[in-house]
Amino acid sequence: MQAQLIALDWGTTSLRAYKLAAGGQVLNQRALSSGIMQLPKGPRLIHGEACSDGFELAFHDVCGDWLDAQPELPVIACGMVGSAQGWREAAYRETPANVASLGNALETVRSRRGTEVHIVPGVIQRSTLPNVMRGEETQVLGVLHSLPDEAAGDLLIGLPGSHSKWVQVAEGCIERFDTFMTGEVFAVLSEHSILGRTQQRGQGFDAAAFDRGVQVALSVDGDSGPLSTIFSARCLGLTGELNAAAQPDYLSGLLIGHELAALATVQRRRRKAMALPAVLLIGNAGLCARYQRALHACGFAQVTLAEQATERGLWQLAVAAGLVRPAAIPSPSMEL
Amino acid sequence: MQAQLIALDWGTTSLRAYKLAAGGQVLNQRALSSGIMQLPKGPRLIHGEACSDGFELAFHDVCGDWLDAQPELPVIACGMVGSAQGWREAAYRETPANVASLGNALETVRSRRGTEVHIVPGVIQRSTLPNVMRGEETQVLGVLHSLPDEAAGDLLIGLPGSHSKWVQVAEGCIERFDTFMTGEVFAVLSEHSILGRTQQRGQGFDAAAFDRGVQVALSVDGDSGPLSTIFSARCLGLTGELNAAAQPDYLSGLLIGHELAALATVQRRRRKAMALPAVLLIGNAGLCARYQRALHACGFAQVTLAEQATERGLWQLAVAAGLVRPAAIPSPSMEL
Repeated sequence: MQAQLIALDWGTTSLRAYKLAAGGQVLNQRALSSGIMQLPKGPRLIHGEACSDGFELAFHDVCGDWLDAQPELPVIACGMVGSAQGWREAAYRETPANVASLGNALETVRSRRGTEVHIVPGVIQRSTLPNVMRGEETQVLGVLHSLPDEAAGDLLIGLPGSHSKWVQVAEGCIERFDTFMTGEVFAVLSEHSILGRTQQRGQGFDAAAFDRGVQVALSVDGDSGPLSTIFSARCLGLTGELNAAAQPDYLSGLLIGHELAALATVQRRRRKAMALPAVLLIGNAGLCARYQRALHACGFAQVTLAEQATERGLWQLAVAAGLVRPAAIPSPSMEL
Repeated sequence: MQAQLIALDWGTTSLRAYKLAAGGQVLNQRALSSGIMQLPKGPRLIHGEACSDGFELAFHDVCGDWLDAQPELPVIACGMVGSAQGWREAAYRETPANVASLGNALETVRSRRGTEVHIVPGVIQRSTLPNVMRGEETQVLGVLHSLPDEAAGDLLIGLPGSHSKWVQVAEGCIERFDTFMTGEVFAVLSEHSILGRTQQRGQGFDAAAFDRGVQVALSVDGDSGPLSTIFSARCLGLTGELNAAAQPDYLSGLLIGHELAALATVQRRRRKAMALPAVLLIGNAGLCARYQRALHACGFAQVTLAEQATERGLWQLAVAAGLVRPAAIPSPSMEL
């Protein structure tokens, strides 16, 4: 099947490339660790010319051969590649944002080989406390496209990660969202605080320790908030009630539990209802599994997982931008 | 005036020594950076013998000359010097704890010069989530001694720091306490998270930025908790609403605001009353001034500062242990 688009998911620490055929079907994919904060260093020869630009080098590494074979393939990219520290800044677009508004606002950078890379802007919410996302908007739009409209009304889309996003959607639009720095807080506490000193890391997932942390966050002790409850990881270790190998997942459960307890409070207030919305999770399978456990404990009864959100979102945005045709799956005669 | 006691406040990063006269009057004091995690390294000659024990070296540095002049002076010490990583572990004593119960449980280590160093145990609270303190118990007992009994009933003693402690007291006892890792969380976020990358540090205290952070924590946006609101330091920076130099104090206000909002909730629940207790703060003047601002914003109407808490506590414990006589200020005939 003939490729129609190269789609790049270019974040802080990783670079994923997808070769997509008609309808967004994935023909090939690759992942490099060449995120914008760890770009390759040159100089190195590319097509006979010395190159020391990290973006050019990473771009060549991840899809240079695909472009050699099909030089006219359009390229679209989302994520931190469009930030102020990226290859070309793609200014945030305001909420509400949908496939059309973002697809019509792609920023373009011309690579050394002449290929234009079309970069998806992030989204900003200008609420009392502003909020931003970059990369997640593409994933949300990717799953929204295949949802029936009526499903979106009572839906919350969750994107667990270093900075978890919780996105309210309506009529194909990103309407409102919250960010929780849970993943990054977990990482810095584990690596740089006193809590890390007694942790034994590198074991498999300890579900009991994780669930215990979630339950503490939801208990009356959790009222004192994460700044207080996290100290229990140390104290329970001192009293012999929590062994070193269980401490990382206990802390993970505590923090995710606090995140979701606060999320439930905020969602109930905004919706003026006790009932919590259905949740659709997008992201790393292991992390989504943790969130799924904790969501159930927090009273979110319906949780499902979405797949291929990024590549589907990039395809939809490329269609909206006119980079590819919105063809259905091609007939057999069109295949190579 | 004749010295009667050497009192050491020996923590993780610092070592303070006080030479005390009758009644606990401070004759002399010193501070070194020889906390238990940054002890001096040997070998070095002490009284003609090579010594490479960091505790011995620091002890010699901070009060060797005082002991040379008065070899019979008793020595008492509190803080992390009594932890498992300290000079000699002084096992935690359970709540309720008072001057008598701790003073009768001093742990002793004999220094190379033959002086016994009496180490104050920490305090453990065996609640559902256990909690520990080490060093703060001495400060609390130091201020409790000079308070009228009736004042303690509606009092909360606050010790801001890397790990803030909030202590409920009754009849001269430490009854119950909570820990918030606010100071350490602030430090690791500023030094190791994405929030630090846009901070410009080293300016003077920005009261407006601090107060703004406190107000966000107390606002409806604060319902999403610190894991969420801290991201606003970045977003407000991106939108130009918070400059780089204001970001550290904004984050400080946010975190302290969340700590105190949670503290108020918990105190109201435990006391079954809307009225909040009077607060007595012990600690670093600059940090206490921040907490005082934020406490007022959170509805704690009466806040006072205590001084010389550590040296007064060490004196009281030495009296209880029989290391010194509980003399009042000596008559002139007793002075040297």
